[in-house]
Amino acid sequence: MGNGKSEIGEAEVGTMELIPGGSVTTPSGFAAGGIHVGVRTDWDKLDVGIVASEAPCVAAATYTQNRVPGASLVVSRQHLSDGKAQAIVANAGCANAATGKQGMDDAIAMAQLTARKLGIDPHDVVVASTGVIGTYLPMDRIGGGIERMTLAADGGLDFAKTIMTTDTVAKHVAVRCGTWSIGGVVKGVGMIHPNMATMLCFITTDAAVAQPFLAAALKRAVDVSFNMIDVDSDTSPDDIALVLANGLAGGAPIHSGHPEAPAFEAALERVCVTLARKMVADAEGATKVIQARVEGAASVEDARKAAREIIRSVGVKTAIYGQDANWGRVLSAIGNSGAAVAEEKVSLFFQTPDGKEICVFRGAPLTYDMAEAKSCLAPAEVHIRVDMGLGDGAATAWGSDLTEEFVRLNSVYTT
Amino acid sequence: MGNGKSEIGEAEVGTMELIPGGSVTTPSGFAAGGIHVGVRTDWDKLDVGIVASEAPCVAAATYTQNRVPGASLVVSRQHLSDGKAQAIVANAGCANAATGKQGMDDAIAMAQLTARKLGIDPHDVVVASTGVIGTYLPMDRIGGGIERMTLAADGGLDFAKTIMTTDTVAKHVAVRCGTWSIGGVVKGVGMIHPNMATMLCFITTDAAVAQPFLAAALKRAVDVSFNMIDVDSDTSPDDIALVLANGLAGGAPIHSGHPEAPAFEAALERVCVTLARKMVADAEGATKVIQARVEGAASVEDARKAAREIIRSVGVKTAIYGQDANWGRVLSAIGNSGAAVAEEKVSLFFQTPDGKEICVFRGAPLTYDMAEAKSCLAPAEVHIRVDMGLGDGAATAWGSDLTEEFVRLNSVYTT
Repeated sequence: MGNGKSEIGEAEVGTMELIPGGSVTTPSGFAAGGIHVGVRTDWDKLDVGIVASEAPCVAAATYTQNRVPGASLVVSRQHLSDGKAQAIVANAGCANAATGKQGMDDAIAMAQLTARKLGIDPHDVVVASTGVIGTYLPMDRIGGGIERMTLAADGGLDFAKTIMTTDTVAKHVAVRCGTWSIGGVVKGVGMIHPNMATMLCFITTDAAVAQPFLAAALKRAVDVSFNMIDVDSDTSPDDIALVLANGLAGGAPIHSGHPEAPAFEAALERVCVTLARKMVADAEGATKVIQARVEGAASVEDARKAAREIIRSVGVKTAIYGQDANWGRVLSAIGNSGAAVAEEKVSLFFQTPDGKEICVFRGAPLTYDMAEAKSCLAPAEVHIRVDMGLGDGAATAWGSDLTEEFVRLNSVYTT
Repeated sequence: MGNGKSEIGEAEVGTMELIPGGSVTTPSGFAAGGIHVGVRTDWDKLDVGIVASEAPCVAAATYTQNRVPGASLVVSRQHLSDGKAQAIVANAGCANAATGKQGMDDAIAMAQLTARKLGIDPHDVVVASTGVIGTYLPMDRIGGGIERMTLAADGGLDFAKTIMTTDTVAKHVAVRCGTWSIGGVVKGVGMIHPNMATMLCFITTDAAVAQPFLAAALKRAVDVSFNMIDVDSDTSPDDIALVLANGLAGGAPIHSGHPEAPAFEAALERVCVTLARKMVADAEGATKVIQARVEGAASVEDARKAAREIIRSVGVKTAIYGQDANWGRVLSAIGNSGAAVAEEKVSLFFQTPDGKEICVFRGAPLTYDMAEAKSCLAPAEVHIRVDMGLGDGAATAWGSDLTEEFVRLNSVYTT
C-alpha cells in the first residue's frame, strides 16, 4: 500500500494468507444465509440476510455521523452498547430511515424475530437496513423470510448478495493469520464520503480479542480505509462498520501489547482497505479508481485532508474520466483542502501504465510529453502522487471518477 | 427573497429601481471595454477587458480561500491593501495560477500596462484572470490588446463578455437608488462552492462610501449570495468579488449609521444575489436552479449549513435533475450538514408550479400525491422549504442540478 504500486483487491500480503473466495463465514463458528422476500416489489434479488455466530462475540462498531440516523442504526447502537453481539440481520431495498416510531418498532421486531430463530437474546442482534430513505419495511414478508431462511457455514456469499443495492458485484474478502482468520463483507457504491463509516460493512473473526482493543483497532482500520474513499461526497443515515469476534480459535484474548496484536491490526486493516477499494472500483457509473497519495505534508492530518480533497473534487473526477491530464485541478483541490500548502514546494506526479512516474509540476509547470501524460489516465486505476515538500505526513485516498452514467443512475432511479 | 416565491433574476424591489440592461458602466464615471487577443488560440471571443473610473475609488474585496491563489489574485490583494483602486484589467482563457514567479511578473506587467494606458498608478489597478490553471499568459498579445482597447461609457456588456469562460450568457445587473446606482458583473458557472467568493465579480457604484462600511457591506452581501450557491463543490484559485465606489454621485460618504446606509446595503445585496442566481441558472450543463429555504433552525449559522448542504448534495442534485421527488436525500443532506437536527420536528415541503406547497415529511413520511410531488420538480426553478422546528434561524441557498452534460463539459474540455 501507499507506494503507488499496489493493485486493487487481493494482492499478496506478508505473513497473512489470503483465502480465495473468503467471506464472513470463513472464520470458525459463523454461519450465514440470504433469502428473497420482496422488500422492494420491483426486485427479485436476495434482500434479507443473517450472519450468526455459534458462540457469543465481542463486538465493536463505527457509525455514520449523519444526524438523522436510520431506525435500524439507532437500535443497533443500543444493542452494541455492552460491546457484545452474536448475530446480524440485514435487508436491502429499504433504509428504514426517516420512518419515525414505526421504523423503531420495525427494527426492534427484526431483532426479536432473528433472536427467536437463533435462540439468543434480541439485544445480541445487530440490525442493518439499506436502500430507499423514507419508506417502511414490509414486516410481514421480512418476518416470514427470517423464519424460512437457512443458515450455512458457506453462506457468506449469499449474505453478501442480500445487502447489495446498486452494487454490481458482491464484495467480500478473508485473510488467515496462523490460528485465526478475519472475513469481511461490504456494500456501498453511492453516498460514499469520508465521514466515519459510509456503507454497511460486517467483519467476522474467530480470534479471541479484548473489546477495547477490538474497538481501537477497528477505528484505526476504518480511518485508513472507509474514511479515505469518496464516490459522491454524500453520506447515508445507515452506515455502519461492525466487527464480531467469537474467540473460537482459542487462546487468550488479543489486547494492546499482546504478541499477536500487530498481526491482528494489520489483518483487520488489510480487510478494510481491500473492501474499501472494492467499493470504489464498483462505484456507481465509475470507469476508474483514482488513487491519491500525498507525501511530505506538514502532518498526517494535512496529508489526509489533501488526499481526500483530490479524490472528492468533481473537477478532478471529471477530468480523469475524460483522460484529461488537467493537473491544475489537482493543485486547486490541494489548495482547497485546508492543508498547509506552499505552492513553490509542491510537486505533482502521474504514474505511467508501465509504473514509472512523470512530474508535471514542481513549484511551476514543467514541460512534459502530453501524450505520455494522457496515457497515465488510461488504466482502470489512476495514480496521482503529491509531494507537499513541507514535512513527513503521508496518506492515501481512493475515489471514483464521475461519469454521465453516475448521473443517469442517480437521476432515473429512486435509490 | 426568502419566501420561496421569488423569481430568478430581475424581480422588482421596493425603493430600488432596476436599470434594464444595466451593467458596471451604469454608475457615473465608469467606462469599460473588451478586445479579442487570443489568450487561448482556440477561442475567437473577447478575452481581455478593462473597467476604469475617471476618479479614484474606495475599494473592498473578498477573496478565494483556496491556499494556492493565482498570481493575479495575489497581486490584486496587494494593490487593494490600501482600500483604494481605480481600474480593473481582466482576462479569460488562462487563470495565471500555478505559474510561479513568471506568473507574478506577468500579473504585475498587466497592471503596469493598464496603468500606463490610463495614466494612473499601477497599484490602483486590480488584475483578474480566469481559465485554465497551470498555463502562462501570452503577454505579447495581452500587452498589444490593452494598448489597442477602446473604453466606452456603454462598454459594460463588452467587458462582461470578456470574462466569460464556459458561461453561456453575460451576467450583469444594475440598480438605481435616488442619486446613486450600483452595477455588477459576474462570471462563473463551474468550480462554484460556498467558500468566500467563488468566481470573478466586479461591482461599481458612483455612491460615495466610506471604506470600512463598504468592506463590511460587501462581506454581508457576499455571505447571503455568492457564499450560498453551489455548482460542483470546487473553488478556484482566482475567485474575487470586488466593489469600486467613485463617489461621483456626490454627498458625504455613506457610513454605518448614515441615513442611506440601509438602502446601500439592500442595493448591494440585491446586486449580489441577482448575480449569484444568474450564475447558478447558467451553471455548466444545468437544467434547473434548486432553491433551498431553511427556516426554524437553531441558529442562522445552522440554517446556512443545512441550506448549503441541500444544494451541494450530489444525491439531491441528480434526483431533481431526474424529477424524482426523493425527499429522503434532502433529509439525509440536512443530517449530513452539521446543523442541529431533531428528526421528529423536521418538516419538508416542495412548491407546486402554481405556488402552493405540499408537505412530504413531518417527523415521519406523509402520504401525498406522487404525481403532484413530481410536478414540483418540473419548473426551471425548484423550491424546497425545510422547517427544522427548533428555533428561528433562516437562510436561503441556490444550487444547480447535476446532469450528464455537466460531466461531458468537464471531462471533454480542459477548462
